Amino acid sequence: MKDLAIGIDVGGTKALAVLVTPEGDILDELRSSTPQDTTGGAGVATARVLADQVATLCARHGLDPVDLPIGIGMPGLVRRDGRLAEAANLVGAAGASFPELLAESLGATHVYMENDGNCAALGEHAWGAARGIDDFVMVTLGTGIGGGIVTNGVLMRGQNGFGGEIGHMVVQARGAICGCGGFGCWERYASGGGLARLTFEWANEGRLPVLAERCGGAQNVRGEDVTRAAGEGLDEALTLVDDVAWWLARGLANLVAILDAGHFVVGGGLSVAADLLLPRARVYLEELTFGYDKREAILLTPSGLTVHAGALGAARVAFDRLS
Amino acid sequence: MKDLAIGIDVGGTKALAVLVTPEGDILDELRSSTPQDTTGGAGVATARVLADQVATLCARHGLDPVDLPIGIGMPGLVRRDGRLAEAANLVGAAGASFPELLAESLGATHVYMENDGNCAALGEHAWGAARGIDDFVMVTLGTGIGGGIVTNGVLMRGQNGFGGEIGHMVVQARGAICGCGGFGCWERYASGGGLARLTFEWANEGRLPVLAERCGGAQNVRGEDVTRAAGEGLDEALTLVDDVAWWLARGLANLVAILDAGHFVVGGGLSVAADLLLPRARVYLEELTFGYDKREAILLTPSGLTVHAGALGAARVAFDRLS
Repeated sequence: MKDLAIGIDVGGTKALAVLVTPEGDILDELRSSTPQDTTGGAGVATARVLADQVATLCARHGLDPVDLPIGIGMPGLVRRDGRLAEAANLVGAAGASFPELLAESLGATHVYMENDGNCAALGEHAWGAARGIDDFVMVTLGTGIGGGIVTNGVLMRGQNGFGGEIGHMVVQARGAICGCGGFGCWERYASGGGLARLTFEWANEGRLPVLAERCGGAQNVRGEDVTRAAGEGLDEALTLVDDVAWWLARGLANLVAILDAGHFVVGGGLSVAADLLLPRARVYLEELTFGYDKREAILLTPSGLTVHAGALGAARVAFDRLS
Repeated sequence: MKDLAIGIDVGGTKALAVLVTPEGDILDELRSSTPQDTTGGAGVATARVLADQVATLCARHGLDPVDLPIGIGMPGLVRRDGRLAEAANLVGAAGASFPELLAESLGATHVYMENDGNCAALGEHAWGAARGIDDFVMVTLGTGIGGGIVTNGVLMRGQNGFGGEIGHMVVQARGAICGCGGFGCWERYASGGGLARLTFEWANEGRLPVLAERCGGAQNVRGEDVTRAAGEGLDEALTLVDDVAWWLARGLANLVAILDAGHFVVGGGLSVAADLLLPRARVYLEELTFGYDKREAILLTPSGLTVHAGALGAARVAFDRLS
């Protein structure tokens, strides 16, 4: 195994790059904005940002990018060959091969790409909350819901490499419209985006009167206002958070039925709400899971790597593929 | 591997036992009713029926049950240790260990138990529509929906052995009540029971006028009437079958999102409707699957073993565990 690797977690608005040891220690990190223009075609502008991050980290530490293992975690559908098939939140990046683009710009020869939820799963498995646990499901609550399924210690990649897109499991047929073009996807109910959508609905229906007054009108109430107020104990906010927790448990219970999953690691941007969401979701999970009392305990644990899970996991992918 | 095995597929009303070669050839078979009384405690009455089947097949072929591999496929939650944790359709059988009961009554020493959907998956994998296919999902459409998930050629059993209970994936949160105590389970929409439920609803709403007249009243229209009339081309029946196909595809699309499944084998008692359901479900699957056009083709094939899938799979379990 190489001594160091770079892992990059690419999001819709920013990319987080980390320089990592084989033990999962972060030696350095760098945050950059991802471009919103599409100049130069599929993924070129995004690849330029990632190449700059790699170049900067290499320069700081006297490393040569040519034979450094580099892992990239991408939202969307990443093919087994490392090509990005679809990325709703990355303008103009679909179809791009980031390994090829980074080879061109930096001469890097060991660049690997994987879905960001899968990266988070591999990161947690190697160095986080799922260390030593060979069967678990990673659930990343951000704007949407990402995920990664590990069985027998191996990531379930599926036919195309798209496995673990649990956020697009429909829990409400013909329900709320989703960015994927579908209706009723889990992530429209139990993610940050789901919280925002429910907040908008509830505020408009007059179900958040205190917050509407605080925020200067129902139309101004945001998801963050709800989680903050819920943390302070405001009833109407707690009721909404409780609803999100119910939806979270609803999807988790489905995964239990299908996979007989016994362990979920919950991370992602909405994990600030973990203190509020997870305890409630645990209660609902008991109520909603088919045959709950016949099963061993189902663990629902917060991410161990928090904001670094995706980037660390991407580095892990690079270590693993190269070794 | 032994020369012969017995596989038994136990349902809510009958049990089908087959005597099978290692190549999957059926030498003999036997159907018996399963008891509806609970005399003698957990599973004793059912075990007696199964023991009779084994004894009869053994007598007919001059076999000794003591060292014959015997596999039992059971509806419900079957633990990894072969104990039945829950069986909604088998009165009084929960908690029973059929391997122990058959050891007591016949002296049989190689009795293995597995969930019936898992058995069907293993049967199709060994000798049916999934021969040579190491990643697929078995979907059995009966009164409910059973299933079995095979990845990398191995059955996904999960934490307790309950993996593949896909019928209890909720596709309509707070939807139709299910025998499991939940609401909105897939099997309430896309199985024989789902067809029956929708038939009842549609007939009561006056949406099946021709059938209501034929059957002497809306209250008399049954699922079988609908599938028969659909086969004859009656519009109102075809519309209802189309709705069931939509729900079938809705659940399949969820499994694609989660597992990136590329192959489904569809069997079970409702498979008589395969000619009507599957072509329609294929069309809806294209519409409902997240990123459908980015994926390799998703195959939806009818069972190769039809009514024998579960019993053959149970025999396969016995062969495999003993070898």
